[in-house]
Amino acid sequence: MTRTQRIRGVLAPVVTPFNKDLAPDPQRFLTHCRWLLGQGSGLAVFGTNSEANSLSLDERLALLEFLLDAGIDPARMMPGTGSCALIDAVQLTDRATKAGCAGVLMLPPFYYKGVSEEGLFRFFSETVERVGDARLRIYLYHIPPVAMVGITPGLVERLLVRYPGVIAGMKDSSGDWTNTRTMLDNFAASGFDVFVGSESFLLANMQHGGAGCISATANVNPAAIDRLFRCWQEGDAGEQQQRLDAVRGVVERAALLPSLKAVLARYRNDPAWATVRPPLVELAAAQVQDLIQGLDALGFEMPGLTAG
Amino acid sequence: MTRTQRIRGVLAPVVTPFNKDLAPDPQRFLTHCRWLLGQGSGLAVFGTNSEANSLSLDERLALLEFLLDAGIDPARMMPGTGSCALIDAVQLTDRATKAGCAGVLMLPPFYYKGVSEEGLFRFFSETVERVGDARLRIYLYHIPPVAMVGITPGLVERLLVRYPGVIAGMKDSSGDWTNTRTMLDNFAASGFDVFVGSESFLLANMQHGGAGCISATANVNPAAIDRLFRCWQEGDAGEQQQRLDAVRGVVERAALLPSLKAVLARYRNDPAWATVRPPLVELAAAQVQDLIQGLDALGFEMPGLTAG
Repeated sequence: MTRTQRIRGVLAPVVTPFNKDLAPDPQRFLTHCRWLLGQGSGLAVFGTNSEANSLSLDERLALLEFLLDAGIDPARMMPGTGSCALIDAVQLTDRATKAGCAGVLMLPPFYYKGVSEEGLFRFFSETVERVGDARLRIYLYHIPPVAMVGITPGLVERLLVRYPGVIAGMKDSSGDWTNTRTMLDNFAASGFDVFVGSESFLLANMQHGGAGCISATANVNPAAIDRLFRCWQEGDAGEQQQRLDAVRGVVERAALLPSLKAVLARYRNDPAWATVRPPLVELAAAQVQDLIQGLDALGFEMPGLTAG
Repeated sequence: MTRTQRIRGVLAPVVTPFNKDLAPDPQRFLTHCRWLLGQGSGLAVFGTNSEANSLSLDERLALLEFLLDAGIDPARMMPGTGSCALIDAVQLTDRATKAGCAGVLMLPPFYYKGVSEEGLFRFFSETVERVGDARLRIYLYHIPPVAMVGITPGLVERLLVRYPGVIAGMKDSSGDWTNTRTMLDNFAASGFDVFVGSESFLLANMQHGGAGCISATANVNPAAIDRLFRCWQEGDAGEQQQRLDAVRGVVERAALLPSLKAVLARYRNDPAWATVRPPLVELAAAQVQDLIQGLDALGFEMPGLTAG
């Protein structure tokens, strides 16, 4: 993959495995990353469903180095590097960029609410200037239900004018197709790559010039989501979308991230995968049972893995 | 001050000065801390209006060491140590506790929204267990308009039962007197110290068994706020409260934190004080003028400092 060829398709916000003492487990993390790559998924490590903000900066840097040292292709990676603290965002963005990552997925600073467009522009602008690397590709992360601070079309426009090429696209996790459509209509033609934050919008996104999806569910169902990305113009695309939605519906019945970890614990025969860091809480036994029964009823499988 | 004597009264969430390159300026920080102590205010460094979450963990640790090395009395300090990442919260809490700080003011982890009481309980519980120091005093920080994740009476009760003495009190920045009253009525009698997050509620808080206030405005008006704390049972307490409210009303006309920094820039004859980190933005010139004129009209002064 050359520098001029942008990353597209399906990326998983890779869930982060923890040991019993809540320390990240790099080896399990690597194993899962390799499986995802083999299923056609890129690696959006350090996303919302990676519990990235529950990790220290040093933990994120160490996990990134571990993957790079193990030979994971940085061209398939889009690490989350946003932070409330500018200098943390700069440090992680700088490292990912110098390592050759395809791009970085940046949350806006999310502690203060009701901040101005000017303040957010300055935050991203300072990041670009301080990293000072022509290889930098920033994907803006819009997830108002969680971050509460969003990425408006006005902010995108201003950043694109000032840093064309560097501002490479966005992930829209608003769950609001009207918002995604606005971003596509306003910016996609100029080469701004819009990823939806859920595969439920993948077909619609592709039909309107989008670049793919970065979805939590890709941690457990990557091959099927990647197939729709590749075959969205084929006759059965609508059916594929429905099957993806059915799996997601089951995984979303209880809290999404603990559910993903419960699925991994089951299909990897490895109960430790269920561990989450506070303030999140693992599923109750009855929720796990409901989840697994729901997936079994759909004939769900994780290729290459065997449920315990 | 002995260990059994808890900190009470007025504390300022000390504003953090930045140089032009946005690095913290420890010397200006120390100067301001010394002035605040001289005016009767304690030091709630690393609060919301300190831009604490815009600082890296290393920056917060370094500023704390600088104050301690300069001889600032830790018994007058209540550093903010909350974080989205448990291990960051533990590291800063541990350092503050071992340094002899009167307590720590802990935000709940604030990235994920709608988290369970169980998840928050585990976060605070893990912090207490990992610090493992009998001197630890935690003040829970309830600021739903900003953090969005709050501290419920149910959570306070559960923590008090499990960690009596360690869970020492709270700062209520809800701006909702009914909530403060609930906390006072439920917990104050058992030695749980309720600080209000604005001096506008100081008289009411003292009349109902509260411990004081931790208010941004104490950065510029500490002596007058401290006077009401000491004299709330005197005949002119209502008038004092009104005068405090009038000053606060002017400082709150525009964004609170940039306004506080503008006042410091003016009264310290030091324009650099106006600098804020993104995503915050300094006041516009017209806003500064309106602010200063408003304060002048009230006969506002900062004892020991002379406006430029």
